[in-house]
Amino acid sequence: MTRQLHFNAFLMSTGHHESSWRLPESDPRANTDIGHFRRLAQIAERGTFDSIFFADSPQLFQDVGRRPAGGLEPIQVLASVAGVTSRIGLIATATTSYNEPFNLARAFASLDHISGGRAGWNVVTTATAEAAQNFNLDTLPNHRDRYDRAAEFLQVAQQLWDSWDDDAILADKDAGAWGDNDKVNTVDHKGRFFGVRGPLNVERSPQGHPLIVQAGSSEDGKDLAAKYAEAVFTAQQTLADAQAFYSDLKSRAKALGRNPDHIMILPGIVPIIGETQAQAQALESELDRLIVPKYALKELAKTLKIDPSELSLDEQLPANLPSEDQIEGAKSRYSLVVSLARRENLTVRELIGRLGGGRGHRTFTGTPVQVADAITEWFDSGAADGFNIMPAVLPSGLEAFVDTVVPILRERGLFRTDYTGSTLREHYGLPRPTNVFDKTLQEVG
Amino acid sequence: MTRQLHFNAFLMSTGHHESSWRLPESDPRANTDIGHFRRLAQIAERGTFDSIFFADSPQLFQDVGRRPAGGLEPIQVLASVAGVTSRIGLIATATTSYNEPFNLARAFASLDHISGGRAGWNVVTTATAEAAQNFNLDTLPNHRDRYDRAAEFLQVAQQLWDSWDDDAILADKDAGAWGDNDKVNTVDHKGRFFGVRGPLNVERSPQGHPLIVQAGSSEDGKDLAAKYAEAVFTAQQTLADAQAFYSDLKSRAKALGRNPDHIMILPGIVPIIGETQAQAQALESELDRLIVPKYALKELAKTLKIDPSELSLDEQLPANLPSEDQIEGAKSRYSLVVSLARRENLTVRELIGRLGGGRGHRTFTGTPVQVADAITEWFDSGAADGFNIMPAVLPSGLEAFVDTVVPILRERGLFRTDYTGSTLREHYGLPRPTNVFDKTLQEVG
Repeated sequence: MTRQLHFNAFLMSTGHHESSWRLPESDPRANTDIGHFRRLAQIAERGTFDSIFFADSPQLFQDVGRRPAGGLEPIQVLASVAGVTSRIGLIATATTSYNEPFNLARAFASLDHISGGRAGWNVVTTATAEAAQNFNLDTLPNHRDRYDRAAEFLQVAQQLWDSWDDDAILADKDAGAWGDNDKVNTVDHKGRFFGVRGPLNVERSPQGHPLIVQAGSSEDGKDLAAKYAEAVFTAQQTLADAQAFYSDLKSRAKALGRNPDHIMILPGIVPIIGETQAQAQALESELDRLIVPKYALKELAKTLKIDPSELSLDEQLPANLPSEDQIEGAKSRYSLVVSLARRENLTVRELIGRLGGGRGHRTFTGTPVQVADAITEWFDSGAADGFNIMPAVLPSGLEAFVDTVVPILRERGLFRTDYTGSTLREHYGLPRPTNVFDKTLQEVG
Repeated sequence: MTRQLHFNAFLMSTGHHESSWRLPESDPRANTDIGHFRRLAQIAERGTFDSIFFADSPQLFQDVGRRPAGGLEPIQVLASVAGVTSRIGLIATATTSYNEPFNLARAFASLDHISGGRAGWNVVTTATAEAAQNFNLDTLPNHRDRYDRAAEFLQVAQQLWDSWDDDAILADKDAGAWGDNDKVNTVDHKGRFFGVRGPLNVERSPQGHPLIVQAGSSEDGKDLAAKYAEAVFTAQQTLADAQAFYSDLKSRAKALGRNPDHIMILPGIVPIIGETQAQAQALESELDRLIVPKYALKELAKTLKIDPSELSLDEQLPANLPSEDQIEGAKSRYSLVVSLARRENLTVRELIGRLGGGRGHRTFTGTPVQVADAITEWFDSGAADGFNIMPAVLPSGLEAFVDTVVPILRERGLFRTDYTGSTLREHYGLPRPTNVFDKTLQEVG
C-alpha cells in the first residue's frame, strides 16, 4: 500500500486565526462550551483523522481583550469527548514543569482507560515567567533545567505506567484473589527532581503508555523529542526548512537506536479553503482585516523580548534583536518569527498578518485541490509524515477540510477511507510499549 | 414545606462491601469501566439524588489481592458522566497535600463549566506515608501542617475562582474586544506554602465556586470543615454520636459567623435492602462470609498502627493500643474503629465483619420501610441533614435504594420528587458565593 498520510486536528475555541471569534458565524463563548468540542471531535472522526489535540498552559495569557482566553482543562474535555467518539485519538498538552509525575501519569493512564486506548500526551516545559509565578516561583527556571526535569519526569511516568504487569489482575472470585501482588511493582525512583515510590494507582492501560508527543524545536527540545517522542508537532514556514527539520529529527532518533518510522513528524498548517482561489483569499483577507493591531503588537513584542514601543507598524523589525541564546522561553518560536520577517522583508504590519493566522505555522490558502496538492508535495518530498491541521475558523474550517480536501487525498490513495485500528498507536502505526517490569517478556522494541 | 432530606451516592467499583466484587452479579473489572460509572450516575439521577461522589487517593492501597484496587481519576470520570446526566451534582476527592492550588482550582472550575454548575470538591489532606513517598517525601507531613496547608490552599483556590468578575467577558465583535482586562484580577498570594499570582486561566464558573466538601472528623478536620465546608461526609456508628457530631459542627460554624444551614451534615450509611428482613440479612451474611480474613487483618492492623501478629481473630483488640494523639494519619478513623470494638466487646473477627461493609460507616440492614424508618429517625432527631448513601453492592444496591426506599421517603414528603434547581448548590440549598474581587458587589455571604 502507498505510504499513508496522518492527520491531527489541533482544536481551539473559534479557530486558530486570532480574529476568528469576530466572524458572524462564530460563538465567542465557545471556549467554555463542551458541546462545541464534542461536535468538533465528531467532525474530525468523520474525516478519519488520527487524532484531535488541545494545547494548554497553566496561566492566563493576560490580554483578554484580544481573543477568547483561558478555557476548559483539556484532559477533562477529552474524557468527555471520548463518550461521543469511538476511534479518534485524544491528545492533550500538560506541562512537566508544574505537575508531579504521579498525578500526570495517573491522569493519562486514566484517559487511556476511559477512551479504550486513545490517549496521547503533548509534553511541554512551559516557557513563561507568568506560569512560574503561579507555582511558587519568581522567575522561569532556565531552559536546560526545564528539559532535564521533563526527561526525568518522562522516565518516572513510563515506569509508573509499567508498574502493573498486563496480567496483574486475576479477578478470581472463587479463590477470593482480585490481583496478584507479585505482578504489581514499586518504582522506587530517586532522582534529581523526583522521588517516587509507586506503584501507580491504576492498572496498565490499553496502550501501555499514552502516545508521547513533543513540540519544542530548540536543540534541547529536539533532543527530548528524538529520545521520547512518537509524534512531533512543528511550525515550518518553507518546504526546505521542513525537510531539514524532518531529516534532522529522524537522524537523531536513529542515532539513539530508535526506528525512525516510530517518530511521526507533523508540521502544522493553517488551511484556508474556498470553492475558488478568490473565495479562499477573500476569507483570509477578511480575517486579517479584523486583527486589532494593538493586541498583536504587544504579543509580538513579548515574543521578541522587547518593548512594544520599539516596533512600528510600517517598518521592519529593529536590527538589534537579542540572539536565540539569550532567550530562556520559547526559543524555536522566537527564531521562526525573526527569520520569517527577515527572509521576506516584512513590515511589522505584514508580519502580524502572517502570524495572526497560525502563530507562525504555514498557511495554505486556496481551493481544495490546491490545498491537497500542497499537502501532497510536502508529504512526497521528505518534509512530513502527516500534518497538524489548524483550521483558521472552527467548526467551518474543519468541516471544509474534512468534506473537500480529505476526499481528494483518499482518491489519491494517500489517506485512509476508514479506521483500520482501534487505538491511537494503531492509527499512527506505532507499537505498544513492552513493560520494563514484566519478567516474562523480552524487549521487542 | 417539610424540611427536606439530601442524598449523595458514594460510588466505588462494585460497591462498598469489600466482598462485593465476588458476588456472581459483579463485574470485577468495573473499576476501570467508564460505562459502569455512567450507568450508576444515571440511576442516582433517576432517584433525584443531590449528587454522586468518588473518593480517591494518590497511591495504590498495596494489597491488590483483597478487592478491586486503583481506578480511574475521578474528575475525568465526572467530566464524562456530565455528558449523560443533566442535573445531578458531581463531587470528587482531591488532595491539597500533593497538588498545586492553580491546577486544582482550574480543574474544578473546568468541571463546573463542563457540567453546567454541578461540580463539588471533597477536600482531603491524605493520611499515609505511602502517598507522601509518591511525592518526593520520605514520611507523612504532620497532621497540623497538612491542615494548615489545606486552609491556605482553599484560600488561594477561592481567590482564583473569583479572579474573573462574572461580567468580565464582553464578546464585543464590532469593537474587537473579547474581554475586559479591568475585570480580570491578579491574586498575588504569597503565603507559607504557596506563591500564586493568578488570574486563573478560565472564567468564573456557573456556581462561582464548586461546592466544598470535607470529611475529616479530627479536631483539625472539624475546624477546617466549620470554616470552609458546605457539606460534610462523616462516619457515625450510633445515633448519639451522630447527634453530638452534628451539633458540634453546626456550633463551630455558627461561632465563625456562618449560617449553620449552609453546612450540610451527611453521615455515611450502608443500606442492605431485601424484600423481607430475612432476605436483607441473608445478603449481608453472604457478603460477610466472602471476606478473606488475611487481607482484612492486615488492613485493620494498619489502621491501628500495630503489627498484624498482635491480632487474633477470636479475641478482642489488644488492651495497649496507641492513643489518638500518637496517630499522624487518619485520626478520626482510628478512634471510630477502636471505640466500636470496645463499646460492643467485639472479637477481631466480628470487628472485621462490621468494618467490611462500610469501613466504619453505619450499616442499615432491612426492608425498604425499615431502612426508610432508620433514615427518618436520624433525620428527625438532629443527627443529619441527609445521608451519604454507600451501597454495599453496585449497581444493585443503588437500584434497590432508588426504587424501593426513595419512593417511601417521597411519600412521606421528606424527599423531592423532581429537581427544582439546576446546580449542585441549588440542590443543597446553598448560595452562590459572591466574588471578593468584584468592586460592584457587596458581601451578602
